[in-house]
Amino acid sequence: MIEREPADLLALAQGGSRTALARLLTYVESESPRHRTTASLVYAKPAPYVVGITGPPGAGKSTLTDRLITTALSHGSFDGDGAFDQVGILCVDPSSPFTGGAILGDRIRMQDHATDEHVFIRSMATRGHLGGLSLAVPDALRVLGAANFTLALVETVGVGQMEVDIASAADTTVVVTNPGWGDAMQANKAGLLEVADIFVINKADRTGVRETRRDLEQMLDLGGTHDWRPVIIETVASDGVGTEELWSAISDHRRFFAGARREARVRQRTRANFDQVLAATLRAQIGAVSAGQAYDAQIAQLLADQTDPYRAADTLLSES
Amino acid sequence: MIEREPADLLALAQGGSRTALARLLTYVESESPRHRTTASLVYAKPAPYVVGITGPPGAGKSTLTDRLITTALSHGSFDGDGAFDQVGILCVDPSSPFTGGAILGDRIRMQDHATDEHVFIRSMATRGHLGGLSLAVPDALRVLGAANFTLALVETVGVGQMEVDIASAADTTVVVTNPGWGDAMQANKAGLLEVADIFVINKADRTGVRETRRDLEQMLDLGGTHDWRPVIIETVASDGVGTEELWSAISDHRRFFAGARREARVRQRTRANFDQVLAATLRAQIGAVSAGQAYDAQIAQLLADQTDPYRAADTLLSES
Repeated sequence: MIEREPADLLALAQGGSRTALARLLTYVESESPRHRTTASLVYAKPAPYVVGITGPPGAGKSTLTDRLITTALSHGSFDGDGAFDQVGILCVDPSSPFTGGAILGDRIRMQDHATDEHVFIRSMATRGHLGGLSLAVPDALRVLGAANFTLALVETVGVGQMEVDIASAADTTVVVTNPGWGDAMQANKAGLLEVADIFVINKADRTGVRETRRDLEQMLDLGGTHDWRPVIIETVASDGVGTEELWSAISDHRRFFAGARREARVRQRTRANFDQVLAATLRAQIGAVSAGQAYDAQIAQLLADQTDPYRAADTLLSES
Repeated sequence: MIEREPADLLALAQGGSRTALARLLTYVESESPRHRTTASLVYAKPAPYVVGITGPPGAGKSTLTDRLITTALSHGSFDGDGAFDQVGILCVDPSSPFTGGAILGDRIRMQDHATDEHVFIRSMATRGHLGGLSLAVPDALRVLGAANFTLALVETVGVGQMEVDIASAADTTVVVTNPGWGDAMQANKAGLLEVADIFVINKADRTGVRETRRDLEQMLDLGGTHDWRPVIIETVASDGVGTEELWSAISDHRRFFAGARREARVRQRTRANFDQVLAATLRAQIGAVSAGQAYDAQIAQLLADQTDPYRAADTLLSES
């Protein structure tokens, strides 16, 4: 494919071209100048409503996401409000070295939707990009928004700090557990409590649902400082059980968080994202500065005891 | 004590005042403007020759350091060259919350020297200071140099990356092991090989010395890319056994590393320290920038979709 300018690609993507959309997402994942051009282009557009889905590997997130796509499209709106006729899905695997347009192994279950014109699925994994996925994901969501997507799902694998950070950039965050509630979740309890708007106990046809629900409720009793108390939904995603209830809970949360509450959340998210961009920009500046003659000159002065490192840093940074 | 200017304190410290010296070290540990003034003041002065002593807790580093002070002072020079009549000791414990002039619990063994006018002992621990100990220690060593110390020992507890970083800022780095060579050392083999100029097998009256020596030799056979092959010395620090050999090995290493080799090492260390100061300065800039009106203005523009975070970061950083 010939390298096209982001503005041309965006026009094509808005007209329905998935190839153009995929190319724009490749730009935001890269460190090329096109990343900046694309970001500038899409930030003036409205962002989609973002549902984050996170949980440990094997919890059934992909199957659940798969079912949720069908449910969402069958409704075509959140409880009569906020219509959409397509869904964008970002599958984020911070531990995977693969990236680009390729659909990951366990995404095969979403193959039903892979050729569906109402569905756009994209896998993202760590590569290049300063600041990594936590910077690329918000930009990718803006690209989806600019391409007229009003609903996006972000599925992240794992429950580490990074996954939780990514998921918590969503408007509604769904944490997927299983009966038995594994060690990985337990270890990250505080972080999950912080971000979860909805808990799903998937594979609820297995034993231990009642204990898991009781554990979750106890956790919520102890940790409840938010005005929204997370809902607990039981699902058997493989049979499509519970996905209507899940969609309904997502709609409830969206309605609850409208207005001032959502504004506060967006403000917080904007600040967090901006601080990350600032840090990445400064890191890039260190890299650029360290490669220059002015840096070498300061090192020479330091070696000759003609300056101290603090003065040298000030001099170098004020010059650059 | 009345707050005095660093220049006045330095004059007093050069005249032998331990109180003034201790106060200067408090300044370099702090984030106050006096830190910068002090750093500027001392960087034009010659640095002391620095011997780093590191190893896991319980290896007997304090006892060994204690013996080494006595041995060094009894020689009064490195093998006839580089005379000194006092020794400065920095005891660094990155895991301890205590700091300041206080002598830590396991420093009590050095009490013999605590009132010795030829010895100055200072404990340093993590607190405040941007970039922490890895920035404060080089500054503290410069202060010692400015106060006419030509020999300094830096003892660090533990074998983590930070401890190794601090120790490797020394001219000669001594890694203390015991017969049995614990897991902590094993796990950090590569890092230790990188920095060790001398290995000490302390408590060499216990069983397992031969095996530990063989393990170390094998490690050195595999990892030997430097022109100096680390020496292995056996000591029983509690009985004073082997400290003469250790001092002799330190002198040998100092002589070996004179001239061009030392210059290369000093250059590398200067760059590493400068990069850390640069990073800390930039972090401080983020902090300062995030607190200002210009930052708030960019956030407002971001919330109104009037800019993108990359452009906002560039604008903010070019203004500040």
